[in-house]
Amino acid sequence: MHAALAREVIARCRSLAACSDEPGFTTRTFLSPAMRAAHAQLSAWMKAAGMTVSVDAAGNLRGVLAAATAGARTLLIGSHLDTVPHAGAFDGPLGVVIGVALVEQLQGRRLPFNIEVVAFSEEEGVRFGVPFIGSRALVGDVDAKLLETRDASGVSIAEAIRDFGLDPSGVATAAVTPRLRSGQASAPLGYLEFHIEQGPVLHASGKPLAVVDRISGRTAADVAFVGVAGHAGTTPMDARRDAVAGAAVWLRDVEEYARRVPGLVATTGQIVVTPGAANVIAERCRISLDVRHGEDATRTSAVDHLEARAREIARRRQLSLEWSTRLDQPTTPMDARLVAMLKHSVTRAGAPVETMPSGAGHDAMIVAPHMPAAMLFLRTPGGLSHHPDETVLDDDVALALAAGGHFLDELAASIDA
Amino acid sequence: MHAALAREVIARCRSLAACSDEPGFTTRTFLSPAMRAAHAQLSAWMKAAGMTVSVDAAGNLRGVLAAATAGARTLLIGSHLDTVPHAGAFDGPLGVVIGVALVEQLQGRRLPFNIEVVAFSEEEGVRFGVPFIGSRALVGDVDAKLLETRDASGVSIAEAIRDFGLDPSGVATAAVTPRLRSGQASAPLGYLEFHIEQGPVLHASGKPLAVVDRISGRTAADVAFVGVAGHAGTTPMDARRDAVAGAAVWLRDVEEYARRVPGLVATTGQIVVTPGAANVIAERCRISLDVRHGEDATRTSAVDHLEARAREIARRRQLSLEWSTRLDQPTTPMDARLVAMLKHSVTRAGAPVETMPSGAGHDAMIVAPHMPAAMLFLRTPGGLSHHPDETVLDDDVALALAAGGHFLDELAASIDA
Repeated sequence: MHAALAREVIARCRSLAACSDEPGFTTRTFLSPAMRAAHAQLSAWMKAAGMTVSVDAAGNLRGVLAAATAGARTLLIGSHLDTVPHAGAFDGPLGVVIGVALVEQLQGRRLPFNIEVVAFSEEEGVRFGVPFIGSRALVGDVDAKLLETRDASGVSIAEAIRDFGLDPSGVATAAVTPRLRSGQASAPLGYLEFHIEQGPVLHASGKPLAVVDRISGRTAADVAFVGVAGHAGTTPMDARRDAVAGAAVWLRDVEEYARRVPGLVATTGQIVVTPGAANVIAERCRISLDVRHGEDATRTSAVDHLEARAREIARRRQLSLEWSTRLDQPTTPMDARLVAMLKHSVTRAGAPVETMPSGAGHDAMIVAPHMPAAMLFLRTPGGLSHHPDETVLDDDVALALAAGGHFLDELAASIDA
Repeated sequence: MHAALAREVIARCRSLAACSDEPGFTTRTFLSPAMRAAHAQLSAWMKAAGMTVSVDAAGNLRGVLAAATAGARTLLIGSHLDTVPHAGAFDGPLGVVIGVALVEQLQGRRLPFNIEVVAFSEEEGVRFGVPFIGSRALVGDVDAKLLETRDASGVSIAEAIRDFGLDPSGVATAAVTPRLRSGQASAPLGYLEFHIEQGPVLHASGKPLAVVDRISGRTAADVAFVGVAGHAGTTPMDARRDAVAGAAVWLRDVEEYARRVPGLVATTGQIVVTPGAANVIAERCRISLDVRHGEDATRTSAVDHLEARAREIARRRQLSLEWSTRLDQPTTPMDARLVAMLKHSVTRAGAPVETMPSGAGHDAMIVAPHMPAAMLFLRTPGGLSHHPDETVLDDDVALALAAGGHFLDELAASIDA
């Protein structure tokens, strides 16, 4: 049964991938016409599974399967429905479609808790440069200022919500904590998210699934070496204060340091050189630094070391250094009880239990401070994501459905007990 | 006398600097309204010095002081009148203004050759992305294809010439070799260019002037390291094929190699990273390489070494390497006889004789293959050029005027003899 449903899950993800802002690609942004088309498909699947469907004021599509008894608490199963430009079919939608499939798998059976599948309207930050709009609304973290954020065409989030036929003034009602919606007077039981790993770890180790025990903390900084521009032909090497030459020394240090510390990743993915002409010695070289690790102390000590190195290089070369920390996001632990339950469910499904931190941010990171949260990663073949060729294996989805079924049973048993 | 005239030369350069396409800065491009204003000032000074003034079909302003006898040959004294954006007052115009001042210094005396001061319309390549339009016209190297080159607004060189009131179809008549203009039936005697050094060498050594013995050859290449894009959070360090990390190793090699070889300069002033996002491992890192040396063998062996190193780094890191040579310009020697004459003139002026290659390209580089050419550098305080604060010292200009006067005398003597 899991095998057939797994194939159906994959087929549904591919069907949603056809809902795109850009013909020939999968690009689906916050409340675009393509998002409305995706809602139509998902609503139909939810309703067929016996769920009550609504769209909240933040554009999240929400399907509820009522519990066996009134007044029960709610398990949220969520992921995002928006995509990066030229995306694959699975980053985001897979978690939503698996949520609906888990309800179908119950075949009409009611549990001692409601199941609410939430398809978040926005996680990638593509349209407004701000990510997690959907899950932030779910935890009551969308304020008037955020609603005024504008996209490249000058349309605000509030206007986009209104254009979609929703009421932005009601955005607070999207929140689950606190909220007094019929049958859900109490805080949610927890939050569960299925997501592709988007990395090569499971692929390399040959494992299908991993329970996420935490979402790694992240430091993002802009680091600029500043020297003196000069003529490439007339300035002898020993008279130069070349920003690029100084930056190059540091770039090597970043890589070498990160390679030495297990689990640490450091990335310098953006370099902007000013004035940036072939015949002019660089005056300024600005580099983006992205450092992540599951232990905050390891991350902050790495960042401190790299900043000290940058300052030392700059001083030795008579450059100045500008260091601007844009983000210092601590590690977000998943809920220990739900993690243990999820590991047990994976074992019952017959898969090896792998535990790993998530190097990427996910909606679970936003939700976790407000309620118990857990995540299950599915192997990403080749580690390939944010790419049209992104895929998942049928067998891995079948195992995830089996584990998800066991998780619901265990959670039900824990309430009955 | 040299001191007063030197101050006048500097005042004239500063007066020309006020002719600008952009208020508050000195930016003067090919045949702009500001160029017309500069022509008006220069024409007045030329006429007052007894010269016959014309503007050729390439927009070069040309003033001729006739020789003592008809049928004499011509010494060209040239430099450019256009500037980079937000320029100083001396890069280019100084050479033209000194040319006029040398004529004034004759105080009506006629020489056994004509003196033609040429103010080139274009050398910097700012408006059309193609440099040396003025001197190329002087040596007959402007063809119909070049005339069709368009600026950022879509205006072609030919249209710009027409808009200035000139006839682009007559551009060939701007050429001095061969040409049959009244009194100038034979090839020019030679070409002399005064220019600021635009580098720190004379400033550092405390010398006022340098005779340029050659213009250094130059290789320009685009070098791209190509790896695999990946998620900055989910891709472990040992699973990366990071284009920036590979490029950083090579950037250090470039600097270290150039520092070891006397006279060699190597510059990496432009870096473009793709996709260029803070949270994405770089797929592609393209770097501009600019290598210059007065000995072609030293330059080409440096470039070969750097290419081999780039390929080795790429291979070791499973990156691919794209190497594209955009320019391979050999060293241009100045004329030995004129160089010797210029050195002798500098000595007679009482200045120490310094000889150096020019690391920058100049109009003399375009002219030299067609006739004997020589250049005299004036010290650039602080080595600062292409900057509003670019300057020259009164005493250095006075020495250049003295040396120029002796040069004219020596040339006259060599003809009389």
